[in-house]
Amino acid sequence: MRSGFWHIRSFEERFTYHFIRSQPIQTKTPTMTDPAESLNPRRAIEELKKLRELTGDDDGAQRVAFTETWAKARKWLSEKMTELPVTETTDAAGNTWFTLPGESAKSLLIGGHIDSVPNGGWLDGCLNIMAGVEIMRRICAQYNGRPPVTIRVVDWADEEGARFGKSLFGSAAFSGNIDLDEARVLKDRDGISLPDAVGKFGIEFENVKQAGAEQENAAAYLELHIEQGPVLLDMDLPLAVVQGTCGVERHAITFHGQAAHSGSAPMARRKDAFLAAARMAPEIYEITNRHGGVCTIGSCKTEPGIVTSVVKECTITLDQRHLDAGSLASMLAEAKSASERYAAEGNVTVSWERLWQIEPVPFDDELIAFCDEAIVETCGTSHQMPSGPLHDAAEVSRAGIPTVMMFVQSLHGISHNKIEDTREKHLELCIEAMDRLASKTMDWILSR
Amino acid sequence: MRSGFWHIRSFEERFTYHFIRSQPIQTKTPTMTDPAESLNPRRAIEELKKLRELTGDDDGAQRVAFTETWAKARKWLSEKMTELPVTETTDAAGNTWFTLPGESAKSLLIGGHIDSVPNGGWLDGCLNIMAGVEIMRRICAQYNGRPPVTIRVVDWADEEGARFGKSLFGSAAFSGNIDLDEARVLKDRDGISLPDAVGKFGIEFENVKQAGAEQENAAAYLELHIEQGPVLLDMDLPLAVVQGTCGVERHAITFHGQAAHSGSAPMARRKDAFLAAARMAPEIYEITNRHGGVCTIGSCKTEPGIVTSVVKECTITLDQRHLDAGSLASMLAEAKSASERYAAEGNVTVSWERLWQIEPVPFDDELIAFCDEAIVETCGTSHQMPSGPLHDAAEVSRAGIPTVMMFVQSLHGISHNKIEDTREKHLELCIEAMDRLASKTMDWILSR
Repeated sequence: MRSGFWHIRSFEERFTYHFIRSQPIQTKTPTMTDPAESLNPRRAIEELKKLRELTGDDDGAQRVAFTETWAKARKWLSEKMTELPVTETTDAAGNTWFTLPGESAKSLLIGGHIDSVPNGGWLDGCLNIMAGVEIMRRICAQYNGRPPVTIRVVDWADEEGARFGKSLFGSAAFSGNIDLDEARVLKDRDGISLPDAVGKFGIEFENVKQAGAEQENAAAYLELHIEQGPVLLDMDLPLAVVQGTCGVERHAITFHGQAAHSGSAPMARRKDAFLAAARMAPEIYEITNRHGGVCTIGSCKTEPGIVTSVVKECTITLDQRHLDAGSLASMLAEAKSASERYAAEGNVTVSWERLWQIEPVPFDDELIAFCDEAIVETCGTSHQMPSGPLHDAAEVSRAGIPTVMMFVQSLHGISHNKIEDTREKHLELCIEAMDRLASKTMDWILSR
Repeated sequence: MRSGFWHIRSFEERFTYHFIRSQPIQTKTPTMTDPAESLNPRRAIEELKKLRELTGDDDGAQRVAFTETWAKARKWLSEKMTELPVTETTDAAGNTWFTLPGESAKSLLIGGHIDSVPNGGWLDGCLNIMAGVEIMRRICAQYNGRPPVTIRVVDWADEEGARFGKSLFGSAAFSGNIDLDEARVLKDRDGISLPDAVGKFGIEFENVKQAGAEQENAAAYLELHIEQGPVLLDMDLPLAVVQGTCGVERHAITFHGQAAHSGSAPMARRKDAFLAAARMAPEIYEITNRHGGVCTIGSCKTEPGIVTSVVKECTITLDQRHLDAGSLASMLAEAKSASERYAAEGNVTVSWERLWQIEPVPFDDELIAFCDEAIVETCGTSHQMPSGPLHDAAEVSRAGIPTVMMFVQSLHGISHNKIEDTREKHLELCIEAMDRLASKTMDWILSR
């Protein structure tokens, strides 16, 4: 049943979506095949290549949310889904839901995002969608269009936040965690506000939290994603279970010293702000040696910053991530303590400013176990790891819905770049493993 | 005899000096007093205070070379010198020479600079001049206007280089070391070129090296200066002998790593350009522990310089100074070797770019010994130290003229700042010690 869909009238009409309640659509009866044969990972891979051709260029994927190319990708997806007996709806935050109603209203959600960063990779976000579509096809075929639980594939709106600098727009609206006051004033490079931009796509900014209605009957959420780092590449493994998304502590640390002439200030007399700041660099590696997690000093600024003066003021940024809240707190405390020690030793002072923080989001233990089993059954060896980057799955989990993610190896250990890639064999394996995970999760939902 | 002088006709006439050959001036006979009584350091101090009043404001001294205020200061000095039987001449580079002819044409030079940085201190540069004037008064009185050797007080033009970013203009022209190709293209903030600016003060830029003619008969050069650091303050000593000016090696060091997502790049996989650069900070303190001298990292820049990325490229500046050329070379070699070690350990690469260098200029051993004696005789304890900052004395020494400098304590260990100050007792002591040094040097010149 198709109760509503985004209809793109014309891109000349200021790229505006119009939401139209349509008549129920009579879908063709799916071809029933042997379940083992009906999952066709190669078909999903070919579809991803088509999407790349349709919405990418020589610089990579260009499906930035709330743009023409993004709308084109969604239209392509919408047309593809007419082949299945699903309803398409779009919620108050612009998330698109493809629902295959089951015997039970309890729903298994499989999610991803068709939006990309500018000059992005061909897999980040849309691999998750097309794997979900392929799994939905298999389930539809196996259960003759009526599975025991309801299956929903969701395309989250603006996971990347590339245009307005704020990621997880749609999923944070769904979970209720979106900060409207913060989002309301965001502007893109051309000065267009986020509320105006989403308004062009039929979204009433002030109502986006109504997307929370989609939580009804949600029993589990699964998300596949290309790893955005080199861990699986280094381990020579195709797949991993994601244990959760790391908590983040993000701070600016400023050391306050004293300017002095580089020729006349004796070394022992100096109040060298750079010296104290620089000593933090090896320290953060020591901290991760003790606790795991990751720490990054991404920026360093010096004042007056001239060759003939001892540095008066030095500001570094620190980004710390860990899946365990206690470990993250320890990492932060140790960095603070080290900064104070280096400041005291260098006869300077130090001040901290928190830029951002988010708590760790551990995924569901039972789903983690199923995911692990599914991977072992598919390719023999599994691995468990946290995700440093955030994903929509974190927002779904924060909404209280049992959640797990799976990572597939990234060939160059790199993402948000046109060279992002995954071996085709690994793409096939991840879709197969996700399909097994979906089956295990459906059984689990029914058993609860 | 006054063979020529700068005559300031009017500041309204575009502040242009006009060089006028004047008639010989009949000077009044100096009042002869007991030599021991005729040196009056307090008089010199009062004159410095008058100069401060005349050419400073609430922000400090404003005698930037080739400006109206500088011209005013020079006019004030010129008028003061009419009280002595001296000739005033200005050489091809705008250095002003006050010459008291002696029985021998061999000359003792005492130098300083009346120009200051903007918002400068009240002593930097002009203390040297007014001490020289006071010593000249004493010598003139003692020898009834005809000392055994010729005495010359020189006011160097543009020691600070505040307007065009190039210090030691006049003294480098005198020594012949000025780089005309480099100086010719210098511009101030208003886009006025150095040749045009000096032209307004009667100086033909292309002829400035003709100032080298003033080297004739120069037998020794003495310069007093306020210390531009806190060494004497820390040692609780009023005076020091300056052994020479340090050689300088100035470089930009760039570490080349790889950008990576702060959340997904495992610590062990990172090519962190900031880590390698930061490890240089404590290293330069180790280098000075081994060799003496001073090293400064004055600036640090990071690319892309964002909180969520490992640093791809990090550039720091390094300034190294030492009085001994061999030690300076070792310091540079050790810094290079350390940078390569840290780069290799961090899996990044490093490249060096020399920004500037100058060799050390050691002063004359015999004059150093006389200066030491003079300080001990004046205040009981002497100290010997190099000068990190450059001074006109370095250019005079490079011209092959035996040279020494004396430092007087800086009350806050600070210069180029309106709070620059020296205890009046120390000012008196430094003028007395310089006077003793002048006598010893005159004897030495005669004995050669």
